[in-house]
Amino acid sequence: MEFKVSKELIAELEKHIAEKNDKELAVLMNDMHHADIAEILDELDFEDATYIFKVLDSDQTAEILLELEDDLRENILSRLSPKEIAEELDELDTNDAADIIAELSQEIKAEVINELMDVEHAKDIVDLLRYDENSAGGLMGKELVKVNENWNVLTCVKEMRIQAENVSRVHSIYVVDDENRLKGRLSLKDLLTTSTKTQISDIYIRKLNFVNVDTDDVEVARIMQKYDLEAIPVVDELGRLVGRITIDDIVDVIKEEADKDYQMAAGITQDIETNDSIVELIRARLPWLLIGFVIEIIASFVLKDNERAFEKYTTLIIFVPLLSATAGNIGVQASAIVVQGLANGTLKEFSSNYFSKEITVSMVSGTIISLLLLVYHSLMYQQYLVGFAISISMIVVILFAATLGTLVPLFLHKNKIDPAIATGPFITTSNDVFGIMLYFWVAKLILGF
Amino acid sequence: MEFKVSKELIAELEKHIAEKNDKELAVLMNDMHHADIAEILDELDFEDATYIFKVLDSDQTAEILLELEDDLRENILSRLSPKEIAEELDELDTNDAADIIAELSQEIKAEVINELMDVEHAKDIVDLLRYDENSAGGLMGKELVKVNENWNVLTCVKEMRIQAENVSRVHSIYVVDDENRLKGRLSLKDLLTTSTKTQISDIYIRKLNFVNVDTDDVEVARIMQKYDLEAIPVVDELGRLVGRITIDDIVDVIKEEADKDYQMAAGITQDIETNDSIVELIRARLPWLLIGFVIEIIASFVLKDNERAFEKYTTLIIFVPLLSATAGNIGVQASAIVVQGLANGTLKEFSSNYFSKEITVSMVSGTIISLLLLVYHSLMYQQYLVGFAISISMIVVILFAATLGTLVPLFLHKNKIDPAIATGPFITTSNDVFGIMLYFWVAKLILGF
Repeated sequence: MEFKVSKELIAELEKHIAEKNDKELAVLMNDMHHADIAEILDELDFEDATYIFKVLDSDQTAEILLELEDDLRENILSRLSPKEIAEELDELDTNDAADIIAELSQEIKAEVINELMDVEHAKDIVDLLRYDENSAGGLMGKELVKVNENWNVLTCVKEMRIQAENVSRVHSIYVVDDENRLKGRLSLKDLLTTSTKTQISDIYIRKLNFVNVDTDDVEVARIMQKYDLEAIPVVDELGRLVGRITIDDIVDVIKEEADKDYQMAAGITQDIETNDSIVELIRARLPWLLIGFVIEIIASFVLKDNERAFEKYTTLIIFVPLLSATAGNIGVQASAIVVQGLANGTLKEFSSNYFSKEITVSMVSGTIISLLLLVYHSLMYQQYLVGFAISISMIVVILFAATLGTLVPLFLHKNKIDPAIATGPFITTSNDVFGIMLYFWVAKLILGF
Repeated sequence: MEFKVSKELIAELEKHIAEKNDKELAVLMNDMHHADIAEILDELDFEDATYIFKVLDSDQTAEILLELEDDLRENILSRLSPKEIAEELDELDTNDAADIIAELSQEIKAEVINELMDVEHAKDIVDLLRYDENSAGGLMGKELVKVNENWNVLTCVKEMRIQAENVSRVHSIYVVDDENRLKGRLSLKDLLTTSTKTQISDIYIRKLNFVNVDTDDVEVARIMQKYDLEAIPVVDELGRLVGRITIDDIVDVIKEEADKDYQMAAGITQDIETNDSIVELIRARLPWLLIGFVIEIIASFVLKDNERAFEKYTTLIIFVPLLSATAGNIGVQASAIVVQGLANGTLKEFSSNYFSKEITVSMVSGTIISLLLLVYHSLMYQQYLVGFAISISMIVVILFAATLGTLVPLFLHKNKIDPAIATGPFITTSNDVFGIMLYFWVAKLILGF
C-alpha cells in the first residue's frame, strides 16, 4: 500500500509540464500526501519541481517544503518573493516555520517576517529564532494547550476549545499559574468527569516531566525515550511554560545522531548524502585522509628505522599488514563498544571493572590469533624463534590496541569532546604507528638483532 | 529535573535490604517512575534487585520488568513461579507481554499462558506469539479502538468507552466492516459534532495508511517517519484489522537498526553492550578478527612474492602502511555513504551518475595525497623515479578502493544481503590485499624490477 515514484508517473508529469497543462497537474497531485509529492519533486530537475510547486495550493506546498531535500528547498525558496515565502510560513507550525526562516539570508529573513499575516504567529516564530538549533528551545513548537490553575472546569473547557484550533495533536493539557509558570498537567478524563465549577487547582496532576530551553536535544531525546513520552513541555529559566516538543521531532534527532556517529566512525567530518555535490563530498572526506596521511608518514619512519631487522628476518615485514589490520580491528571494536555504552548510559566513566573485562576479551582473542599465527608460521617458514617472536609481539600489540580503543573515547568524553571521533581513522592509524613500534621492539627483545 | 541514581541512594537501599526493612523500601520507591526504578535495580546486584522487586506491587513491577537489562530480567524471571510471571503479564499490554513470554523456555511458556487470568488478554498474547519479531506482526499490540461502519454514532460512542478502558493512548479510531476488514478511520471531531443517529459509514475517512502483518519492521519505521504517524493499523492477508503499532515501539526499532549498522561497521557480529559477559563479547568480536586474519595471510603472500622488489627499493615497503590505511579509509568512507544512502532512500540501486561522482571525489582526493607523497618522498629520499612510482600506485589503489567500497554494498543490497557488513573489516582487509598487489604491480611497470 505504500506509494512508490514510478518512471511512468515522472514521464507523465514531465509531459504535462512541457505542455503547461496546469489543470491536469493539479488533479494528479490533489489526492497525494505531501510527503509523496516531495518525493516526486526530489526526482525531477529544479525547473520542473519549481513549476509544479507553483501550480499547487499553499496549504499543500507549505508541508511539501518541509519534506524536500535541502538543495531543492533552497532553490525553490530563492525563486519565491518574501511575500510568497511568508504565505507558506503562515500555514506551518511555529517550529517548522522557524526552521525554514533560519535557512534564509539575513535581509530576506527580515522581509519575510514583515510579511507574515498572523501577528501572534509571527511573534512566536521570532521568539523561536533565538534558541540554539541543538537545544530544546530550537526543537520546541509554540502550539500547545494550557489552562490556568485558578480557572474552573467550565472556563477551562471553553478556553481549550479556542486553543486547540491551532494545535494539530493535543498530547497534553498543561496547567500554569498567573505568571505562566508550569505547575502540572490535566487528565482529559478528570476534566470530563468533574463538575464544571471545580477549580483546576483541585484536580490537576502535579508530577510531570519537563525540560529547560537550553537542555541539549540529545538529552531531550533520551528523556522522552526513557519515560515513553509523546510530548514534553519546555520551560525557561524562571520555570515559565514556553513551548513543547513532540515525538516526531525527537525521531529526527535520534536518526541524525545515529547517522553522525556512523559517519564519524567512517572518517567523514560533516553530514553528507549521496546527492550532495562533489565539493561537499570532498570537503567532508579529505580531512581524515590527510590526518591519516600524516600519521602514516610517522609509521614509515618506524619501518625505516627497523630496516636492518627485516632485512635479516623477512617474515617480520610480511606480517606487518596482518598486525596493522588486527590492531585496527580490535581498536575499532573496543572504541565502538565504549562509544555506544556512553551513548546509551550503560557506561558513564572509566570503570576498572569494564576495563579489566575488555583486557580479558582481547587477551583471549589475541592468544587465539597468536597461536594460529605461530602454527602457520612454523609450518610455512620453519623459523620457530621468529614465529614465536611475531606471535608474542602480536599479543602485546592487540592488548595495546584494546587499551587505546577503550581509553581514548573515555578520555574524550570526560573532556566534553564527542567520543565518536575516536572510532574511525584516528584509532586505526594511531594503532598502526604504535603497533609497528611495539612489534619491532618485542621482536628485538626476543631475536636480539 | 531528571532523575539520577546516586551512590547515597544505592547505599541507603542496600542498608534497608540488609535490615529487611520492606516498609521503608516501599515508601522510598512508591513515588518513583518505573523507568527510574529499573535504572536503580540495574545498578544493584541480582540478589538485592530481586529482593526489591518482590517488595513492590505487581502494577509497578510489570512495567519495571520491561525496562530492565536483559540479564537481570532473565534472572528475576527465573526466580518467579509461572503464576507470579502470569500476574505480571496480566498488567501489561499484549505486545509487551508477548515479548516477555517469547524469552521464556518452552515448558515455562505453556505454564505461564495457562495461568493468565484474563482469557481475552491471553488469547491476544498467544496470537501475537506466532509473528516474526522483526515484522509488523511482531511489533503490534492488540489494544486499539475500532467501530463498525454500520453502527450509528450513539452505539459507536458507547462501544468506544468500553474499548478505551484497555487502551492507554487512543491515537485513532479505526472503522471496520462486519468481517473486521479495515475500511478507514474516524475523526474524533466529526464524531462529536454529528447527530447521534448518523451512520458511521457516512462520516468516516476512507484514506489511511496501514501495513501488513508481514511488513518488515524497518519498513514500518520508514513509513511512520515519512508520514509523521503516531500509530499505524496492521491488517492480515485478508485485510482484517489485527493490531496497531505505536510510535514508541518504532523509536526502539530505529535505534536498534542504527546500533546494528554501527556495530557491523566496527566488525561486531551481534548486538552487545558494555555489561555483557566476556563470553558474549568474545563471540561477537572474534569472527571478524579471524576473517581478517585469513585475508591478511594472503597479504603476507603478496609481500613475500615482491620481496626482491623491496630489497632493491626499500622505500616501497616503508610506505605500505600509508597505502593500506589510505585505501582502507577511502573504502570505508565510500561504503558508509552508500549504506546510508540505501538506508534513507537517496540511493536505490547502482547509478552511473553516483558512481562517476564517487570516482571524481576519490580521483581528486587521491591526486592531492599522491602529490603530497611525491613531494615528501623527493625531499626525504631523493629517489625521484621511485617516488613517482609510489605516487602513481597510490592513485590507482585509491581509485580501486573507492570502486570496491561503492560496488560491494550495492551488490550485497541487490542480493538481499545487509550492505552494512561491507563497511567494516571486510572492506579494509580486502583493500589491503588488492591494494598491495596493485601497488607492486604498478611500481614494477614503472621501475621495471
